[in-house]
Amino acid sequence: MTRLILDVDTGIDDALALAYLATFDTVDVLGVIGTYGNVSVDTAVRNTSYVLERLGLRHIPVIRGSSHPSWARCFIPDAGCAQFHGTDGLGGFGPACDSSSSDTAFSDIFSDNSGSDTVFSRDYRSLISVGGYALDDVHANPAVDSFELSLTTDSASFIHADDSSADSVSEGVQFIIDQVRAYGFDVTVVATGPLTDIDAAITAAPDIAGKLKLVMMGGTLTQEGNCWDLTAETNIIQDPEAADRVFHSDADITMVGLDVTHQCLMGSDATRAWREAANADTLTSSTASQVADSLDGSAGSSNAASAQTSSVAASPSASDVRVFLADMADFSIAANLKADARLFSQGMPLHDPLAAAVAVDPSLVTCIDLPMKVELETGDFHGTRGRTIGDSAGLIDSNAPRIHVAFHVDSSRFVPTFTTRISTL
Amino acid sequence: MTRLILDVDTGIDDALALAYLATFDTVDVLGVIGTYGNVSVDTAVRNTSYVLERLGLRHIPVIRGSSHPSWARCFIPDAGCAQFHGTDGLGGFGPACDSSSSDTAFSDIFSDNSGSDTVFSRDYRSLISVGGYALDDVHANPAVDSFELSLTTDSASFIHADDSSADSVSEGVQFIIDQVRAYGFDVTVVATGPLTDIDAAITAAPDIAGKLKLVMMGGTLTQEGNCWDLTAETNIIQDPEAADRVFHSDADITMVGLDVTHQCLMGSDATRAWREAANADTLTSSTASQVADSLDGSAGSSNAASAQTSSVAASPSASDVRVFLADMADFSIAANLKADARLFSQGMPLHDPLAAAVAVDPSLVTCIDLPMKVELETGDFHGTRGRTIGDSAGLIDSNAPRIHVAFHVDSSRFVPTFTTRISTL
Repeated sequence: MTRLILDVDTGIDDALALAYLATFDTVDVLGVIGTYGNVSVDTAVRNTSYVLERLGLRHIPVIRGSSHPSWARCFIPDAGCAQFHGTDGLGGFGPACDSSSSDTAFSDIFSDNSGSDTVFSRDYRSLISVGGYALDDVHANPAVDSFELSLTTDSASFIHADDSSADSVSEGVQFIIDQVRAYGFDVTVVATGPLTDIDAAITAAPDIAGKLKLVMMGGTLTQEGNCWDLTAETNIIQDPEAADRVFHSDADITMVGLDVTHQCLMGSDATRAWREAANADTLTSSTASQVADSLDGSAGSSNAASAQTSSVAASPSASDVRVFLADMADFSIAANLKADARLFSQGMPLHDPLAAAVAVDPSLVTCIDLPMKVELETGDFHGTRGRTIGDSAGLIDSNAPRIHVAFHVDSSRFVPTFTTRISTL
Repeated sequence: MTRLILDVDTGIDDALALAYLATFDTVDVLGVIGTYGNVSVDTAVRNTSYVLERLGLRHIPVIRGSSHPSWARCFIPDAGCAQFHGTDGLGGFGPACDSSSSDTAFSDIFSDNSGSDTVFSRDYRSLISVGGYALDDVHANPAVDSFELSLTTDSASFIHADDSSADSVSEGVQFIIDQVRAYGFDVTVVATGPLTDIDAAITAAPDIAGKLKLVMMGGTLTQEGNCWDLTAETNIIQDPEAADRVFHSDADITMVGLDVTHQCLMGSDATRAWREAANADTLTSSTASQVADSLDGSAGSSNAASAQTSSVAASPSASDVRVFLADMADFSIAANLKADARLFSQGMPLHDPLAAAVAVDPSLVTCIDLPMKVELETGDFHGTRGRTIGDSAGLIDSNAPRIHVAFHVDSSRFVPTFTTRISTL
């Protein structure tokens, strides 16, 4: 048995990672922590619960993690994340959300006329993270829909934030501490979002560091990044300080970064196969008249929008989790293609699924063992904030902690295995 | 036999690389090209000839390479290079130089009062390289002494520069073309400076690219750089465009970058041993009264300045090439220690010697084979000018040319071998 704790910011590829793990009888997921990142923490928790429910895994506990980076007081999801995951995080295929509870409009809080001076002081703006960038940074680019949601759910802490919260840990962080204390290396923590929870756990309970096995999706060493500067990677830029502390802890860390995830691309041939599998299973219990409709529906689903329509309206397999996964994946495939038609011509990168897969089968990747750091500043005498790079301390100190940095992946084994396993869900 | 062509910007560690190669009976150096980089091209040619003469290798031809980067019209040595190599490139231990031939003072040419309008137009300033940075860049930091020299020797091309020079190749570049055409993979080009000559050779004679075996000192993939931004490496920042073209050629390239050279540190224990070996050899033909003096002299040489004094004044072994090499290495050891007391506490990095050694014995390093690029711009949607990083083209094109990027070195084998071999020169 492979015993896992997941820390996710669900997220289309987080959802696919959960689905992949669900195909293993040999995997025991002790709990899933939802944290901020691709979406707000509340959305992450809600999405995670929904995905697990769709996968028939309602029994797995979902726990609330950190709501914002260690360097900030609150978090606003980024428009770039919304572009790749939808403002709901699941490409528009997530759980229905009651937005009528929003008692504070974007414009009310986010203008100098709001009267909330605390929020708008210059210092405070530097403590609001928009997808990893301080609100006073030119790169801050709020996903407005998500931001409204975030303000609603987090508005209390947003406006009344203070340092007292730093002294307490979230339920999710406590869960990590408790499980690692109980199981040590017999449990692997898989983090597919920012490393804020992992850092908080190690900071609150330094005794767990030496017993913590972590597989993280994030960073990049040998390839360009995917942030504004093509240097940092999105999970790391959310909380470089936390990531740097984790890298310098005694934890056993495997870094599954863009070096390898960009080599694992999944195209619409896979999602078509998932839909066909769903339809085939439905056929065994459907009438002959339904057959033609469902086949027409799936054959015509050349993009996410039509796929959604056809699966809901025309196909009797609409409730099949594979159709749900295909709908989301098609959204991601289209978003990646639109963002970089060259790099993602063959499909979406399987970022989080690869990290989950490596936790189950480390032989999928080849690693360099290297002391690593995360750079915290940009400019002269620095690298670039968020860059994951070898720590020169390791050149002179053979005892410096070493990260297993994946630089090669057997993608011809992983991608087909992944898509086939999802087909048989 | 290992047949080599060297392309060097001599430079203390270039000199040490030449010395190391001189210890091998099995190495045949066809010729050494001196190019701009640590120093001006003229200084590089003069220093190279001097070092070869001191090594008893006067028969090896020294050929003049490029005088400036491909993107610039002229080149001014950088103060940072002077800091590590001395303004003469050899830590003050180079050949005597007649500076009275300088007919143009720094202030005459380099002020708006000079009357040379061509030189001072805004466009022109962006085409003057100061150690890789355009003169209008805030990081341009001329080594004034060297700059005066450069103006003298290059003043004709400096003031009257035009594009016509782009159509002809230097003697050094032609030498590379001719030898690679003659020997193919049976000769290895070792480049320890900017890649301007290599690029010019491939551009002028594209037929040689597929037959060119290159071992280059430069770049960094898994460690920070050594330029202002801690991202670029000094050889690459000189001419990123040239390096990028070379990386995308069909040449067989091994990149010996800071990843590995910063793991090969040589301290003053080595230079002390060289001095002792020189003195011991001198003793066999000296009088008893000279013995005490020479031993006192070498024991007291704790830094480059006193070493120079003692070797010249007190030691009968002053003319020994090992003392010359020790003098220069001690200068470099002190300069590196002053620049970064933590990273270089154990000595100077053996940058160029390691590249030379890898050309003779590739088993010293372990490489990743990776399509590489050199980034040409800094800022949003780019990385950092001069950064050597994986080229994402290789993720989707299995035919993209792959560089052998050294990331591990057997330093415990190389450093002692290097210092012992120099001792026996």
